[in-house]
Amino acid sequence: MRDAFHDDLDAINQTLVDMANLVGSAMNRATTALLTADLALAEEVIAEDDHIDAIQHDLDAKTLNLMARQQPVASDLRTLVTSLRMSADFERMGDFCHHIARIARMRYPATAVPPELALTIQEMGDTAERIIAKVTGLLTSRDLEAALEVERDDDEMDRLHRKLFVTLLDDAWPHGIESAIDMTLLGRYYERCADHAVSVARRVYFLVTGEYATKKD
Amino acid sequence: MRDAFHDDLDAINQTLVDMANLVGSAMNRATTALLTADLALAEEVIAEDDHIDAIQHDLDAKTLNLMARQQPVASDLRTLVTSLRMSADFERMGDFCHHIARIARMRYPATAVPPELALTIQEMGDTAERIIAKVTGLLTSRDLEAALEVERDDDEMDRLHRKLFVTLLDDAWPHGIESAIDMTLLGRYYERCADHAVSVARRVYFLVTGEYATKKD
Repeated sequence: MRDAFHDDLDAINQTLVDMANLVGSAMNRATTALLTADLALAEEVIAEDDHIDAIQHDLDAKTLNLMARQQPVASDLRTLVTSLRMSADFERMGDFCHHIARIARMRYPATAVPPELALTIQEMGDTAERIIAKVTGLLTSRDLEAALEVERDDDEMDRLHRKLFVTLLDDAWPHGIESAIDMTLLGRYYERCADHAVSVARRVYFLVTGEYATKKD
Repeated sequence: MRDAFHDDLDAINQTLVDMANLVGSAMNRATTALLTADLALAEEVIAEDDHIDAIQHDLDAKTLNLMARQQPVASDLRTLVTSLRMSADFERMGDFCHHIARIARMRYPATAVPPELALTIQEMGDTAERIIAKVTGLLTSRDLEAALEVERDDDEMDRLHRKLFVTLLDDAWPHGIESAIDMTLLGRYYERCADHAVSVARRVYFLVTGEYATKKD
């Protein structure tokens, strides 16, 4: 009975890994769609978000069912509750990829990101992808050093986010209000997506140690 | 034993009501601070967010402890898992009040909201407060009609959010990029806060019926 239960726990963790991989791929394609005005790619990311939502829905049902049937205690219960929270994080990260792709679609055939900010957005996308990849690895490795590294990667995201605002607020910004609105929202989507990845890393840390991570500077 | 357990469930629900009341009050004061450039009030909202976070932290610990000790089944388990999710919603709603107050503080002694948008922001604040008040009531009444009403109130929030963008994109917008960034973020904070309230209403609906609400138009 306990073996079957631990197989179920492994299956839940594998589904979280699958979700994380889908989000990583969505982030990569959303950023490419945004920077190259690739409508087909944007549509792909938008359509796939429903798939990520469906996986979360199904995973949560399975997790709740397992809690009800197995009445897990202590660390198993903690694992299941944390799985519910992680699936919510990944679902939300998928939403942000969807939001990024929608801005790409809305401005098509133009490119939503003006040349001055293309590099910053590319770097935000790369940083988000790197964070998501690390978090995906954490789900199986449970490597605490890597969990703490994610916090530092997030500092880089915050730096890029500030840089974006500096560019927007330059007196010479020639692209008007509409573009400033797009860039403000995009900045927030990348930054929030990274924040949720940091939450997942903190949850892994908590699962392993029973304590909350304190940020290393 | 079961009676003590149901007392514990009631206490958890009461803490959720307390959180909801704190968020409603924070929303009211954040909007006032924003529209009247009231620095002291903004600081108050910012400081109190830590208090809301601490309540969530404590409530989640109690809820997990209860799950581990009592091994609840079926509807009791569903209630506890839903409590964890609701406390996360309220905590996040508190964050948005905090974010609104921070914009008020950042622009002080100026008023962050230009006159053209003061009424729209006031209406967004009023709508958010109305939704939070309804959701607070739902936590004890479990009234399904009221739960569905919240969805319609949220439609009003979406309408105000669109109106805000129309004003920003008017060719005659005279307030520049910085103000457009503030207003874009503010619009999103109000709208997201309302979204989380809608989530709470849907969770109440689910708790009572075991089914997800379908939106009434």
